[in-house]
Amino acid sequence: MTVQKDRASVKPVDVRRMVRERTFTEPTHGFSSGYIQANLLVMPKKYRDDFVGLCRRNPVPCPLIAESIPGDPTKCIRDGVGEDLNIGTDIPWYQVYRPGKKQPETVTEIASLWTEEYVGFLIGCSYSFEEALVREGLPPRHMETGVAVPMYRTSIRLHPSGVFGGTYVVSMRPYKKKDIEAVRRASGKYISSHGEPIGWGWDEVGRLGIKDINNPDFGDFVEIREDEVPVFWGCGVTTQAAVMDANIAEPFFAHKPGYMLVTDLEEKDIMI
Amino acid sequence: MTVQKDRASVKPVDVRRMVRERTFTEPTHGFSSGYIQANLLVMPKKYRDDFVGLCRRNPVPCPLIAESIPGDPTKCIRDGVGEDLNIGTDIPWYQVYRPGKKQPETVTEIASLWTEEYVGFLIGCSYSFEEALVREGLPPRHMETGVAVPMYRTSIRLHPSGVFGGTYVVSMRPYKKKDIEAVRRASGKYISSHGEPIGWGWDEVGRLGIKDINNPDFGDFVEIREDEVPVFWGCGVTTQAAVMDANIAEPFFAHKPGYMLVTDLEEKDIMI
Repeated sequence: MTVQKDRASVKPVDVRRMVRERTFTEPTHGFSSGYIQANLLVMPKKYRDDFVGLCRRNPVPCPLIAESIPGDPTKCIRDGVGEDLNIGTDIPWYQVYRPGKKQPETVTEIASLWTEEYVGFLIGCSYSFEEALVREGLPPRHMETGVAVPMYRTSIRLHPSGVFGGTYVVSMRPYKKKDIEAVRRASGKYISSHGEPIGWGWDEVGRLGIKDINNPDFGDFVEIREDEVPVFWGCGVTTQAAVMDANIAEPFFAHKPGYMLVTDLEEKDIMI
Repeated sequence: MTVQKDRASVKPVDVRRMVRERTFTEPTHGFSSGYIQANLLVMPKKYRDDFVGLCRRNPVPCPLIAESIPGDPTKCIRDGVGEDLNIGTDIPWYQVYRPGKKQPETVTEIASLWTEEYVGFLIGCSYSFEEALVREGLPPRHMETGVAVPMYRTSIRLHPSGVFGGTYVVSMRPYKKKDIEAVRRASGKYISSHGEPIGWGWDEVGRLGIKDINNPDFGDFVEIREDEVPVFWGCGVTTQAAVMDANIAEPFFAHKPGYMLVTDLEEKDIMI
């Protein structure tokens, strides 16, 4: 708990420097309370319009927060993302996806792979609304038990954009029925952090095309107690899955799940 | 054709003045080529955050372009919407929806009903991408035959936002399979005008939960020829349906379908 409190008060720029110097290489949850942590995707700039379109047409699972200038991981088009920032070095671990290979390679930096042809995208993550749920006395089960949130592939289709399409990945947190309106309100303000749930209840499992709620496709199993129902949110893993499914001819890069970019953007910058 | 050409060159501010003075009271299609025409919704400001959330979570059927200052139909928060603008008088016909009444009342202005409590929202419409399709030599069937575009209720759910939820309404335009990629590209750039189709092909009819493609819920029937398939876009009627379905306790106002607000915003302002 002390560690968590210490983490919460570290300034984003100091987290990024520790990471860049590799004095910190762990998952970034709990750092810099009130600041946004982001998912990363980096791809050839010829896919830029299609990818921005995918995010703008599907902002619930794919909330686009910022993009880099092509060829430069130190500059974002949006102001205020980070002082002394390098998107290619300031995340503890990255993943390199190469054409034809199912499994990505894990590396410590991608700045050296980042040619003039590449552009980076920052995508909102669930930490923002999860912090809000904790503040409201509604902590998600996986945070209480110290595991990764359970995530599921669904049959809900993304609105296609050029070469990108596919289906939603959702995350699940169990809640009592009586708490759902409070959960909706607490998470709903975080519009670029997936916002309020997309659905809830046992009927929702079938509507989403989830075959086995006890067997998540990503993350860990969490117990749904007798007086609880599953509550589903859009999940940023959707973005990575969409780029993988597009089978583009070039390598692309991403953060390793759980190891995020801590930005200088504040929660209020992504609230409705 | 001459009338259409004349309309195309009229400046938006002049269309609005003609409407306000009631020297023009017809549907606004064809006016002010290159400028955005918008759908209107006006509701009590206490629903503002929920409605903005609905649009931001569902931008394909509900592309929010601008909102007014509460209580003032002459001022928008976004710059450039219109010089000498009054959202409450500059549309030829409005509809007033009252609680408990299924059918709206059609009126010539709503400025006199617009109290301090009301806020207006402008939503993108299909005219922008339809113009682009015409330019590419892919005119939609309903424009060739001079009828309203066919629209269908679907079972695709909106991402809920507070009091608002419900399902998509889609519009349909038939195309040859070989033309679909060109249709996607031409419409896809118009991100705040519903963008590219959400789906196409005969299988899509079932996936959307449309029972009878020959019997649209709104608009007119158009023929789908033997070598064509139905192509579906998000439709702005979704927004009105969502507000109706929320059964709010106060009256709300909208434009009459086909009679739009011609704005000073240019197409490039809503392109990706």
